[in-house]
Amino acid sequence: MGKLRLFVDRMSQPSRAVLIFCLANGIDLEEHLVNLAKGEHRKAEFKLINPMCQVPAMDDNGFHLFESHAMLKYLVCTYPNIKDHWYPADLRKRAQIDCILDWHHSGLRRGSAGLVMNSVIAPVMGRKLDPQAAAEAEALLKASLGKIETVWLTGNGKFLTGSLQPSIADLSLACEVMQLQLLGKAKFSDLLDSNPKVKNWLAAVERTLSPHFSQVHDIIWKAATMYENKREREARKADGTISKL
Amino acid sequence: MGKLRLFVDRMSQPSRAVLIFCLANGIDLEEHLVNLAKGEHRKAEFKLINPMCQVPAMDDNGFHLFESHAMLKYLVCTYPNIKDHWYPADLRKRAQIDCILDWHHSGLRRGSAGLVMNSVIAPVMGRKLDPQAAAEAEALLKASLGKIETVWLTGNGKFLTGSLQPSIADLSLACEVMQLQLLGKAKFSDLLDSNPKVKNWLAAVERTLSPHFSQVHDIIWKAATMYENKREREARKADGTISKL
Repeated sequence: MGKLRLFVDRMSQPSRAVLIFCLANGIDLEEHLVNLAKGEHRKAEFKLINPMCQVPAMDDNGFHLFESHAMLKYLVCTYPNIKDHWYPADLRKRAQIDCILDWHHSGLRRGSAGLVMNSVIAPVMGRKLDPQAAAEAEALLKASLGKIETVWLTGNGKFLTGSLQPSIADLSLACEVMQLQLLGKAKFSDLLDSNPKVKNWLAAVERTLSPHFSQVHDIIWKAATMYENKREREARKADGTISKL
Repeated sequence: MGKLRLFVDRMSQPSRAVLIFCLANGIDLEEHLVNLAKGEHRKAEFKLINPMCQVPAMDDNGFHLFESHAMLKYLVCTYPNIKDHWYPADLRKRAQIDCILDWHHSGLRRGSAGLVMNSVIAPVMGRKLDPQAAAEAEALLKASLGKIETVWLTGNGKFLTGSLQPSIADLSLACEVMQLQLLGKAKFSDLLDSNPKVKNWLAAVERTLSPHFSQVHDIIWKAATMYENKREREARKADGTISKL
């Protein structure tokens, strides 16, 4: 059996979710960087792994798979000694995890990815920033964070659906929320301060999956600082322009 | 054991997928209409079933669940005598079904639902038609139909991933593609004519799930005719206005 080959860019939230899952569960892997900013996901050699040209993707001894949720479920079910809390065998509990992961696509991600793309990273991907699309995405995101607070974080446990241990849904959603760090410290705090349960849950995911969660997010904190400095430089430049008028 | 209670609006493509699955597999159910056009999904009594205010949703003897993909997986795994082809126990085959269903969210649905909403049904939902958003969605949709044609419809079988029998992914994607009937016969043919495998696949899903697939889609054909007549009336009106100038 060869090592699991993971094709990821740590700047992508679903890439981080799969990587952290493997590290936290001792799955031996080879990490292959597919640099999105350099367009490496569109190269012919990567299309052989994932014809949809998206990360993450994997090659498990000749079996190719993509879409992070499908990958996480596959890894839970095929690798040995993965604890039940990640994706419970109990069918009602499992259905709730499936439901949250589907809602990640249909709810949270639309707002979160839309806001980060249209207000921060579009230029890196060769697109223009779009303030109107960003504002619409922010409204969606705020509604979604409210749903995590009031619908998913119920019961006495620290994790989604009141569980005492994290599932693949906690990991997947937490990596999505962490992407909001790219909006800057003030904005990130603003979004989370109105959702105290979400804030505590995020801290619990980070603590429970220490040190992997923080280590894999290192790139996001560095990128967040870079974007913060860029915004400050541009603000100073704009101030300078105004004072000269 | 009480009957499964399904909360659906047949105008919604995921509602139809769950309903057809139950009918095709002899699952005894009570169908509860949640009329989207009348805003019944936002009523307090429905929020008790699904706090996200979306159809489909279900109540299986006190267990509430929503998100159609999660519901389909739950039904396959908990109801007796569901054939393996719907959601294979083989982990690699199952992972591929999961992958297609995730891609339904992240790929196909974005274009399909965006096009139908912004070019046809927005006024029914109290919104304005948006030609620019419709054009962007159409480009996404065409790319997605191309991916079904070239990535998912491979091998010798008639169904996705080359299977000989349909899975919940075939049903889910087929109901999404059928929603495009609302665009009118000419547009629907135009979109499918460039993807002959998709056309044959859709016919195979309809035939294999006969009579349930057609019966549950009856509402869509009626709505399509209504929208077609409306477009013709408006076109005649516009012609009349021009000839009077």
